[in-house]
Amino acid sequence: MKISARNVLKGTIVEVTKGATTSHVKIDVNGAIVTASITNEAVDSLKLEKGKNAYAVVKASDVMVAVD
Amino acid sequence: MKISARNVLKGTIVEVTKGATTSHVKIDVNGAIVTASITNEAVDSLKLEKGKNAYAVVKASDVMVAVD
Amino acid sequence: MKISARNVLKGTIVEVTKGATTSHVKIDVNGAIVTASITNEAVDSLKLEKGKNAYAVVKASDVMVAVD
Amino acid sequence: MKISARNVLKGTIVEVTKGATTSHVKIDVNGAIVTASITNEAVDSLKLEKGKNAYAVVKASDVMVAVD
Amino acid sequence: MKISARNVLKGTIVEVTKGATTSHVKIDVNGAIVTASITNEAVDSLKLEKGKNAYAVVKASDVMVAVD
Amino acid sequence: MKISARNVLKGTIVEVTKGATTSHVKIDVNGAIVTASITNEAVDSLKLEKGKNAYAVVKASDVMVAVD
Repeated sequence: MKISARNVLKGTIVEVTKGATTSHVKIDVNGAIVTASITNEAVDSLKLEKGKNAYAVVKASDVMVAVD
Repeated sequence: MKISARNVLKGTIVEVTKGATTSHVKIDVNGAIVTASITNEAVDSLKLEKGKNAYAVVKASDVMVAVD
Repeated sequence: MKISARNVLKGTIVEVTKGATTSHVKIDVNGAIVTASITNEAVDSLKLEKGKNAYAVVKASDVMVAVD
Repeated sequence: MKISARNVLKGTIVEVTKGATTSHVKIDVNGAIVTASITNEAVDSLKLEKGKNAYAVVKASDVMVAVD
Repeated sequence: MKISARNVLKGTIVEVTKGATTSHVKIDVNGAIVTASITNEAVDSLKLEKGKNAYAVVKASDVMVAVD
Repeated sequence: MKISARNVLKGTIVEVTKGATTSHVKIDVNGAIVTASITNEAVDSLKLEKGKNAYAVVKASDVMVAVD
């Protein structure tokens, strides 16, 4: 499957924290840690766990830009 | 200003493309290119241009995870 | 690629309208028309055009619920 | 109230799962299941429950497109 | 129609700027200007124009918090 | 830090509700209550608590418009 989202960043899962319905997944992308907040259901369905290769995927319209 | 968004990725702007109302800004973050779709107004207000240091900022709830 | 987004709705593209930087793509999903606003770049990269099969993909946290 | 969101999909609620602060609501739209992640507060305020008619509402800029 | 979005802020439209496919609509909410980036199609469909009463609607998961 | 998000609304935190992984923060902005759904981690990192001044920050592409 190819997706229109412009940002598909390859990395490795370093942490999965499950809540009541929402999980937080941290992915190491070239040394930068990217945090995703997704459903527990997705974590189970994709069998996400620490050490697994994964992509952080972000639609361009969800990216902001900041400067110092 | 400190923001609640969990993802604040430092990089350098490599391209700014202005449209009629919406601009696309590409930021090189540790070798990964992150594309942001923001208002022209924001580009002008922050004086975003090629070569400038900038952060790609993404709320954790806007990050998805994908696996091969 | 498998994605964490809980909504992956299969359909057929019925319209692609390109703007200066942003395109609108309409997908017929079981008779319901779903409109996506994505970058022109994504339209080109995925070769999206009328008549092509495609999925409308939406993260669960981007879906609201309304009642009459 | 009329809303600018381009996607207002009519269906029936088939499941409501409450978490600590976040609920997941599944809506059957013409046979496709759409999952929404919304606040518990909204579930209570709109009295969302299984069997009730409801709309899944999505802003066009939150819809991605994927192809096989 | 009642919507799950927790933020429905009443105000008055002070500016509508149309682009090729995307419009920017500014709403004065109790003296604070809220900017919405929506489709031209929505602007036409809702007949949005300067001086008209309108609500800025935002899902809670799309609101960030910042401190000085 | 200056951010591209067009909506940075100054107010005072009136309520913080923590869940398992997700918190809800309510900010009084000129008398209008704005609700943010953010990670517990962000609440801790920014030391958000009732009575503290804070900004509700929203990207323009996440704002919808509604009319009666």
